[in-house]
Amino acid sequence: MDLKSLIRDIPDFPKPGILFRDITTLLRDPDGLRYTIDLFTQKCIDAELQADYVIGMESRGFIFGSLLAYKLESGFIPVRKKGKLPAAVHSIEYELEYGTDCLEVHQDALHPGSRVLIVDDLIATGGTASATAKLVQQIGCELVGFGFIIELRDLQGRKHLPDVPIISLIEY
Amino acid sequence: MDLKSLIRDIPDFPKPGILFRDITTLLRDPDGLRYTIDLFTQKCIDAELQADYVIGMESRGFIFGSLLAYKLESGFIPVRKKGKLPAAVHSIEYELEYGTDCLEVHQDALHPGSRVLIVDDLIATGGTASATAKLVQQIGCELVGFGFIIELRDLQGRKHLPDVPIISLIEY
Repeated sequence: MDLKSLIRDIPDFPKPGILFRDITTLLRDPDGLRYTIDLFTQKCIDAELQADYVIGMESRGFIFGSLLAYKLESGFIPVRKKGKLPAAVHSIEYELEYGTDCLEVHQDALHPGSRVLIVDDLIATGGTASATAKLVQQIGCELVGFGFIIELRDLQGRKHLPDVPIISLIEY
Repeated sequence: MDLKSLIRDIPDFPKPGILFRDITTLLRDPDGLRYTIDLFTQKCIDAELQADYVIGMESRGFIFGSLLAYKLESGFIPVRKKGKLPAAVHSIEYELEYGTDCLEVHQDALHPGSRVLIVDDLIATGGTASATAKLVQQIGCELVGFGFIIELRDLQGRKHLPDVPIISLIEY
């Protein structure tokens, strides 16, 4: 299946000069959704990326992270923006183009030695994925790899990530 | 499986006097996640709630909505807060306790006659589910039902919803 044909390009979103790769058109297509998740799962199995927990980042990462967790028979752990998780959290601040942002995970969700796979819809500059990796590594988790539906190769997000396997299904 | 034992109660979140039902402890448990999704799917099938599209509301609804869509072999359509979806949207404003909020769906995601199932993690007063129902009904979709993991019965959210089947797995 040609997954790229299910991704919609939207110029100038969220701001002028950005070409947004919209995955809602893929999600809306029952065969596309099924094929994407089954392929993503198989690639994780082939790369031996099964983990105790799949981590997905708010909010599109929730979609693919929870699906991967279900398919790989792992638990799912959400990483959220500041103040959204109800119990005690570990936090990490990270740099954006302008200013900083903050990601949080529940303190009792992960432990030293937990094997984790980080999943998001897209990797661009790698800021969010890199911050999430630092967050779980500070806890002492074993990061087994990353999985993305889309990778924007030109932005070289990979070079900001730790040296673990990185899976992406669609490259631009 | 006793699903309630996997839900964590957090007093005074997000504000004093609210007892928050935290589903992250259920998601984190591989057997709990699998059992929940398989049971949810079976209940939807038993109630003949298969639809062309499953709609999930940002952001915890993304988790259960996309999983249900995958399991039911439907497409998944996200309903998001204002300004998050990249293409042209239909919007609906709805009342909160203080002020208003806005939900949006892509204009080309749904059409008159599309059969939709609305899924969220929890129904409390029913404000979000009711607004989402109005949004899809204004488009002319056929709303086949609602699915929630948790229903807070005392808040009587059901009475604000259209007269279609409503599934909930855990009641308080």
